[in-house]
Amino acid sequence: MKKPASVHILISSAKNAANVRYLCGAEPPETAVLIQTGRRGTLIVSEMEYNRLRRTVKRGITVLHPEMIGSSWKKGPADWIKKSVTEKKLIVGTDFPLGLAEKLKRAGFKLKISEEAICPQREIKTADEISAVQNAQRAAVAAMNAAIKQIASAEIGQDGILRCGQTVLTAEMVRATICHTLLDREGIALETIVAGGPHSADPHERGTGPLRAGQPIVLDIFPRSAVTGYWGDLTRTVCRGPAPAELKKMYNAVKAAQSAALQAVKAGVWTDDVHAAAAGELDRRGFKNETIDGVPQGFIHGTGHGVGLEIHEAPRVSSAVHKKLRAGNIITIEPGLYYPHIGGIRIEDTIAVTKDSYKILVPCLKKLEI
Amino acid sequence: MKKPASVHILISSAKNAANVRYLCGAEPPETAVLIQTGRRGTLIVSEMEYNRLRRTVKRGITVLHPEMIGSSWKKGPADWIKKSVTEKKLIVGTDFPLGLAEKLKRAGFKLKISEEAICPQREIKTADEISAVQNAQRAAVAAMNAAIKQIASAEIGQDGILRCGQTVLTAEMVRATICHTLLDREGIALETIVAGGPHSADPHERGTGPLRAGQPIVLDIFPRSAVTGYWGDLTRTVCRGPAPAELKKMYNAVKAAQSAALQAVKAGVWTDDVHAAAAGELDRRGFKNETIDGVPQGFIHGTGHGVGLEIHEAPRVSSAVHKKLRAGNIITIEPGLYYPHIGGIRIEDTIAVTKDSYKILVPCLKKLEI
Repeated sequence: MKKPASVHILISSAKNAANVRYLCGAEPPETAVLIQTGRRGTLIVSEMEYNRLRRTVKRGITVLHPEMIGSSWKKGPADWIKKSVTEKKLIVGTDFPLGLAEKLKRAGFKLKISEEAICPQREIKTADEISAVQNAQRAAVAAMNAAIKQIASAEIGQDGILRCGQTVLTAEMVRATICHTLLDREGIALETIVAGGPHSADPHERGTGPLRAGQPIVLDIFPRSAVTGYWGDLTRTVCRGPAPAELKKMYNAVKAAQSAALQAVKAGVWTDDVHAAAAGELDRRGFKNETIDGVPQGFIHGTGHGVGLEIHEAPRVSSAVHKKLRAGNIITIEPGLYYPHIGGIRIEDTIAVTKDSYKILVPCLKKLEI
Repeated sequence: MKKPASVHILISSAKNAANVRYLCGAEPPETAVLIQTGRRGTLIVSEMEYNRLRRTVKRGITVLHPEMIGSSWKKGPADWIKKSVTEKKLIVGTDFPLGLAEKLKRAGFKLKISEEAICPQREIKTADEISAVQNAQRAAVAAMNAAIKQIASAEIGQDGILRCGQTVLTAEMVRATICHTLLDREGIALETIVAGGPHSADPHERGTGPLRAGQPIVLDIFPRSAVTGYWGDLTRTVCRGPAPAELKKMYNAVKAAQSAALQAVKAGVWTDDVHAAAAGELDRRGFKNETIDGVPQGFIHGTGHGVGLEIHEAPRVSSAVHKKLRAGNIITIEPGLYYPHIGGIRIEDTIAVTKDSYKILVPCLKKLEI
């Protein structure tokens, strides 16, 4: 009998660099161990990172390299923890690496997995943090305006393809405009979505190739500040030239759904109720969720997510999360509709939740036809 | 007695997005589970990602969303694995999230941690992969040339500060030149180092503020291709105007150390022997490693690292890793010297290891004084 093939499980998600940055106030290196005891922290890094971090971490954080605790880089995190922690009961996050956990257990440590977020305070932004997200969002708005100007000024060819003079206007060219504009404002765009026509029907398709008139073009711009590490997030959908009636109807529905969700936002409201406000509005206007030929269509994602040192962080605003919004949360409100035969519409703003309402961090025009 | 504060351990490192991308041939979303059985894989993603990935994954990968296997997004990865894997013995990497591991154990799975890399084949690059790194490296060389031209053409003020006309030349301005040049070549620079004077003494300090004549300026450029996801990596150190004798001596030593390491490179050679070749050359020239006032100085990092879908990947070339180089490895060779009272020198090229020698992927001039 043939031996069955081994089953590997891989998870493509990671969370802790943002927590380490938040707690230390400095950009963490690739491999670093932070031992947080109450309000004090010990950050263990390589010799080459030691001096930079010693200069840049915030008060209460002690930076060490393995040689300072009688270990070595080669011996690795389990040995560093063994050499610097006397307490035997450790709390770790759900994302803690299993291999390291097993080594620590063999060294006599007891690990308790905390299902709670390790830095729940990250969800409530300070004034400085709101200002950092706002700066990133300003860059996003500037880039959006530049992209829309470029698309609006394109000529429509006989074939419906957009042209700037003799040159066909492509998603890549608009993305370049966006990225250069962001760069001039210390924003780094790891990914930028310029998804025209059929591409717009997949929410995270980045988009390639020529852009056309009369089709939706989803522009989703999410820069990270190279200085602060905080993100901004902004989406608009535009159409060069007259939009088909069905697309206009979709656009108006998504815009109304965004308004409905925004109207629902204030401290104390449940995240899933905010999602329900957006979903309900789309449903009332006849836009249903269904799976056709195996492809889910309609409003196929959550209404929003927290934004801070991660582009997607807590609190999530979706049907899957039942959590109270709190003043100081920064979240996106971004309903969308996606149908392969027409394309997609998404409208997204990043807002701060307040006691009685919300504040759009940086306003940006909403207009389908350009 | 006061209850002792709880000890949290955080690790700022994550690896699996690159493995998932490698195995699936498509950009994985933030949360995805890949179940790899022999050569076949099942990728479980959210409804919103389903169609995009179904279109873009490579042969042998089946894309599913939780609803297709009788689960839901809300139920999470443990339930998705339970619903789609019948085999009870699973192999996971050392970085596998502990929380998920515990849930799987409670569901009756047995987890075996593989200390080996999950995708060891990633270390041996195919012709397409070499070409992808080479393209990223071409962008890096173009950006390096643009940065050096900008620094070389700056005037030296009476105060030693560099100026372009009336404007003081800053690290931020040179970084902008680099990033815009990369962008025009589909390169994204998450971090770029333009570290002048004292900043250059910390290998990973990004650098800020005015640049000066007669001081080292470390330019470390490592773009990721927005198209392929592969990285390039290139470092040069320059000095505007005449360099102090001590700096020249350091530069020549680092250049000789790089040559010595390169001469040692071929398939079958041990990584730590390549590192020893560089370290030996620096030592012979009188550049010692020591810790002064708590700050490690000298050659305080490894000689190089693999480059591919991660900027730092296996094989590492350092005293801590004893591993045979193989033809098809792509590695950097980047010795450096760092002394707080003078600054730092680093020279780095990215090379492909061949049967008998090595190939520099894209040549780039080495010159200290400009």
